[in-house]
Amino acid sequence: MATMLLQMLLLFAQAVTPEQDIRAVLSRQVADWNRGDVRAFMEGYEKSESLTFVGKTIARGHAAVLANYLKNYPSKEKMGQLEFEIVEVRMLGSSYASVIGRWKLTRSASAGGDAGGIYTLLFRKGAAGWRIIQDHTS
Amino acid sequence: MATMLLQMLLLFAQAVTPEQDIRAVLSRQVADWNRGDVRAFMEGYEKSESLTFVGKTIARGHAAVLANYLKNYPSKEKMGQLEFEIVEVRMLGSSYASVIGRWKLTRSASAGGDAGGIYTLLFRKGAAGWRIIQDHTS
Repeated sequence: MATMLLQMLLLFAQAVTPEQDIRAVLSRQVADWNRGDVRAFMEGYEKSESLTFVGKTIARGHAAVLANYLKNYPSKEKMGQLEFEIVEVRMLGSSYASVIGRWKLTRSASAGGDAGGIYTLLFRKGAAGWRIIQDHTS
Repeated sequence: MATMLLQMLLLFAQAVTPEQDIRAVLSRQVADWNRGDVRAFMEGYEKSESLTFVGKTIARGHAAVLANYLKNYPSKEKMGQLEFEIVEVRMLGSSYASVIGRWKLTRSASAGGDAGGIYTLLFRKGAAGWRIIQDHTS
């Protein structure tokens, strides 16, 4: 009986909403970033040529976005400690979602100091689950 | 016969794609802006409390976004001449679309000088047609 209850609890635990899935992707990105693992952080993005990162310029494709992160954050010290504050998750039908959030980087002065701003993300649900297909960070 | 041909041509002319509709909304915004008509420009945005404009801060609702435009661009001179370069229109299902573009403002030095940057927009197709529901401008 206790085993059956446990199984039922596990089933309920898995019945997460798309919003919970999306929030989990972002939480994992923060944990990966704060371990200094840019490649694991990049798992939150769709592995696609059409992945788009809008910053000061427009970068296209998973490889280009990864290259920019590696260039701009070459060490754990430069990566600092990341925090996300999710302001809104809005479903756009069943396969797309939009996220608005604030990001904050706590960093030593020698690593560039604190930084922060606002991001808007587009998520798409593909075979691998919910992944970011567009990131506009300012 | 000539009338029938004309009617058929008109039918074809109306059979525009969602992307053409979206581009038309943006073209009209540029024309309205360049006439100095902020309120007409605002017609491109959904008249909704959930309309979101992300700039240096996050503004919510049609009235708040309009108020910001009127504050930041109080005269035709301050509005300058706007140009949009649409980089990408991506459909997100049949009711939502994402647009990436560059904006450029040509303005006299006394009005603040030239300005420009990148925007990402979310469009939604509602009763009034395609309208912007989220604008991230940097």
